Amino acid sequence: MDKILRIDMGGDGNPEVKEVLIGEYEGLGGRALTSGIIAKEVPPTCHALGAENKLVIAPGLLSGTTAAMSGRISVGCKSPLTGGIKEANAGGQPSQMLARLGYAAIVLEGKPKTDDLYKVFINKDGVQVTVDNSLRMMTNYDLIDKMKNEYGEKISCISIGPAGEMKMCSASVACTDMELRPTRHAGRGGVGAVMGAKGVKVIILDDAGMPMRSPKDPEKFKNANKRFVNGLNSHAVTGEGLPAYGTNVLTNILSEVGGYPTYNFKQGSFDGAAKISGETQAETETARGGLATHGCHRGCVIRCSGIFHDKDGHYLTKQPEYETVWAHGGNCGIDDLDTVAMLDFLDDNYGVDTIEMGNAIAVAMEAGLAEFGDGEAASNFVDEVGKGTHLGRILGSGAAVVARAFGVERAPVVKGQAMPAYDPRAVQGIGVTYATSPMGADHTAGYAVAQNVLKVGGDVDALKPEGQVELSRNLQIATAAIDSTGMCLFIAFAILDQPETFQALLDIIGAYAGVEFTADGVTVLGKKVLTDELDFNARAGFTHAHARLPSYFKTEVFPPHNVTFEVTDEELDQVFKW
Amino acid sequence: MDKILRIDMGGDGNPEVKEVLIGEYEGLGGRALTSGIIAKEVPPTCHALGAENKLVIAPGLLSGTTAAMSGRISVGCKSPLTGGIKEANAGGQPSQMLARLGYAAIVLEGKPKTDDLYKVFINKDGVQVTVDNSLRMMTNYDLIDKMKNEYGEKISCISIGPAGEMKMCSASVACTDMELRPTRHAGRGGVGAVMGAKGVKVIILDDAGMPMRSPKDPEKFKNANKRFVNGLNSHAVTGEGLPAYGTNVLTNILSEVGGYPTYNFKQGSFDGAAKISGETQAETETARGGLATHGCHRGCVIRCSGIFHDKDGHYLTKQPEYETVWAHGGNCGIDDLDTVAMLDFLDDNYGVDTIEMGNAIAVAMEAGLAEFGDGEAASNFVDEVGKGTHLGRILGSGAAVVARAFGVERAPVVKGQAMPAYDPRAVQGIGVTYATSPMGADHTAGYAVAQNVLKVGGDVDALKPEGQVELSRNLQIATAAIDSTGMCLFIAFAILDQPETFQALLDIIGAYAGVEFTADGVTVLGKKVLTDELDFNARAGFTHAHARLPSYFKTEVFPPHNVTFEVTDEELDQVFKW
Repeated sequence: MDKILRIDMGGDGNPEVKEVLIGEYEGLGGRALTSGIIAKEVPPTCHALGAENKLVIAPGLLSGTTAAMSGRISVGCKSPLTGGIKEANAGGQPSQMLARLGYAAIVLEGKPKTDDLYKVFINKDGVQVTVDNSLRMMTNYDLIDKMKNEYGEKISCISIGPAGEMKMCSASVACTDMELRPTRHAGRGGVGAVMGAKGVKVIILDDAGMPMRSPKDPEKFKNANKRFVNGLNSHAVTGEGLPAYGTNVLTNILSEVGGYPTYNFKQGSFDGAAKISGETQAETETARGGLATHGCHRGCVIRCSGIFHDKDGHYLTKQPEYETVWAHGGNCGIDDLDTVAMLDFLDDNYGVDTIEMGNAIAVAMEAGLAEFGDGEAASNFVDEVGKGTHLGRILGSGAAVVARAFGVERAPVVKGQAMPAYDPRAVQGIGVTYATSPMGADHTAGYAVAQNVLKVGGDVDALKPEGQVELSRNLQIATAAIDSTGMCLFIAFAILDQPETFQALLDIIGAYAGVEFTADGVTVLGKKVLTDELDFNARAGFTHAHARLPSYFKTEVFPPHNVTFEVTDEELDQVFKW
Repeated sequence: MDKILRIDMGGDGNPEVKEVLIGEYEGLGGRALTSGIIAKEVPPTCHALGAENKLVIAPGLLSGTTAAMSGRISVGCKSPLTGGIKEANAGGQPSQMLARLGYAAIVLEGKPKTDDLYKVFINKDGVQVTVDNSLRMMTNYDLIDKMKNEYGEKISCISIGPAGEMKMCSASVACTDMELRPTRHAGRGGVGAVMGAKGVKVIILDDAGMPMRSPKDPEKFKNANKRFVNGLNSHAVTGEGLPAYGTNVLTNILSEVGGYPTYNFKQGSFDGAAKISGETQAETETARGGLATHGCHRGCVIRCSGIFHDKDGHYLTKQPEYETVWAHGGNCGIDDLDTVAMLDFLDDNYGVDTIEMGNAIAVAMEAGLAEFGDGEAASNFVDEVGKGTHLGRILGSGAAVVARAFGVERAPVVKGQAMPAYDPRAVQGIGVTYATSPMGADHTAGYAVAQNVLKVGGDVDALKPEGQVELSRNLQIATAAIDSTGMCLFIAFAILDQPETFQALLDIIGAYAGVEFTADGVTVLGKKVLTDELDFNARAGFTHAHARLPSYFKTEVFPPHNVTFEVTDEELDQVFKW
């Protein structure tokens, strides 16, 4: 992890591969590294699809070690969706493999001189960048099958589907899971479009022959990791709720508290919630011979994922996440789990962000292109995206463009990025995060749902503005740090509630680096990451005016609590004053 | 002109009409009034299609008087295309009529509660606002024919076509000309979409029984006007070039100096220039029984317009302007005047901005949707817009959205608005205006082509960065003032070159208001207008980062001079430092 692999896709006609020492970025991983490189090396006003943008793919600081939960990978660039800095992250196998191959990051730079499509193969012997136009417009599942045939079963892949090749603003970067399926996506902000603009279809990783990465203090590390795992196993959310029902355990909870945005953010409870809930999903998966409890990468002990089979008992997709079930389910008025699972598969296969796509469809439904609840229409819409029809180009450009194209005012976007599965009026803390995160509307940037709804790590009234700014600030700082370690964000439930589990995490990081690492270190790291990101965005032209929810959230009351977003502009402007 | 007509389209179910005294806006007209009202009354971060935006339609300060050239009307709002403040202006008859009816402005406010479509009829007896859903999706020409049948031949109309009803970001507001045809458009920035969002299809004006507006000092006014007209008649541009060949006199000139952007801004000279030039156009018009020299409104003495007949000698459209001929001609590689004229007619009929539309088509051609030069494809594209097909929705959203939807980097836009017919690399002064104008890329905001190319009002080397900032600054100030008088901007050619004509203009304004009006007054007024606009934009979130050309203009050399845009960012940031 002392090397960065830089591939200049422009080069002198052919891509140029360079391995360089990590140098000034020493000690950074994951989001800290992607945002550090982007903030320093990419001109903020450049075109996101142009030669000056870079796509940075970085395992976390702890990825490739034996630390539990350390398999997240960060993908960063200037976002074609928001125009600001972007870090999207994913689980799956590539993070661990890339780290073991010794790379702190892959940086795709420049712009290809031709339309050729490339694949990048990395193993212990080095890096091969090869033209392979036979991959053109291949879906992710077909692509991975082909790579399996060529490179064997022990690989992992980072790839784009047709949407990325078409440079759509909703295009994701797919990572393969433990079954070598392209189900874990760095979804948000159009990172797949940037990979497409670099002409790279797939990166194949084979870490055979490479050792686990060693911490500086192996004994302390092992001991801390054990305490950490015990802590995760003993918490109600990470030890029970998530393993049993996955993230979709939230459907019933959010609908019950009235914070579940349905019909394009019109109301906070959904009659069909029970039919698409995590409980129903787990039951269905088990009954059909799928899996209700499964990790997305080796080393995961929470295992909030699963495997979803169709009615005939055949693999259809991984267990759809809560935000996906919401985006394609409740937000589109769809209450059929098989339809939602099919949409999840299609999104993964074409390589698009499920949150952006679900919002795009809901806005299209509001525009009258289909009725809310029409699952067949929704499936057809996603197929249009995959085929790149004219309608598909609109939908694939994200919810904001759909709204613009069809003259719709109610587009639930911040900085051009669509909101996830929590209404900011009924969960005001997450509204603060949506408005202010440098990423655009992003629940993972500062998950105030924990304190607002789940009452984990504190209790802040979801319906009131009081305390939300401080809450979001602290969460955004902590999250930026966690996103840099390679740790899955879900560890937050346990470390927020259990001081000893938080200490175990600090000890893991400290033992890895051979230093004493304290809670202050988390804050310093988180602030450094956010400072890089905010600085990039400021130079890209973002101001306080962009750190706002669309104005209808302040005027349109949201049933059943009939609330509006009440955090004032002045309060929002305090979030990053620390 | 001491009243403002405010129509709240939301109201309590029905539109509410209020006549209020002009009050604090006393003494303002045209752009000064539209921008003054928008800057004061519209929340800058509101949605452009929402209840909080307002559409302000204001005749110039001198409109309705006997002053020559005083027939321009300003249409202002928050732009759905740029997200910033917008003033688009047009010729035709409505400005004079609205002024004589006593209104300094019509302000359309609020948001209709239903989908009903309204018409507004204004005559000496008052204002009628009526639901008329029979007008739905009517093209401008059909609409005006219907209005003629209902209200007679003495009216003038302000209307939107299907594009405005569909709230497309390229939608224009049409004004009828002396022949009661909908040929004069406030084109830029999607002002038609805002009128559509207010539910108003057409405003019908009948000034029968209303007197000419009287200046405070009629004798001085009359005398000054005479000197002013003499000045216009004696200048080579306003007295010869424009009357003979119209604005399209520029095609040969710009192509010869290498500043004519062709094939989506790829090169500065066009092989087909002579075939679509003003000279050829005038000859064709005369030969077919059209008119090569014709005013767009009563009181015009330059008469740079004309009437274009088809091959069979039937009316097709008004004489297409230079920017239209360029947008649909050279920029799309099309060198056929009949095709261009047909596109001009289609744009007017559906109600879209010819500049935005031509750019949208050129970007679509670059994306591979058609070959450059394919006139039939271009016509089909505009028909798609008029019909609102999915492709039409993309094209009708403007060049930036076309580029986004099809993953094209080379979109010649600033603040989301497409550039007009002068390449900023070969005419660097206009590049400064494109980058910095609060309007987005707009040649009329500070027409440095005059000094860079035509050598009117000064001589600043078009290919060099030196002197362009000061030039653009002075022009933007003067233009903001002229746009507030109702005067056609083309008077600038004469007043820049001839001190006595400038003095005559000052005397007209002074005699109108009954004061001594000096050159300083022009500067004060211009700065006030720009300050309002810049202030609105700053509050809407615009920064220096938005006052930039797309980065490829700084790196991609532009033949035949092989130049790039060389005005630095630091220099651009000086434009509004006065």
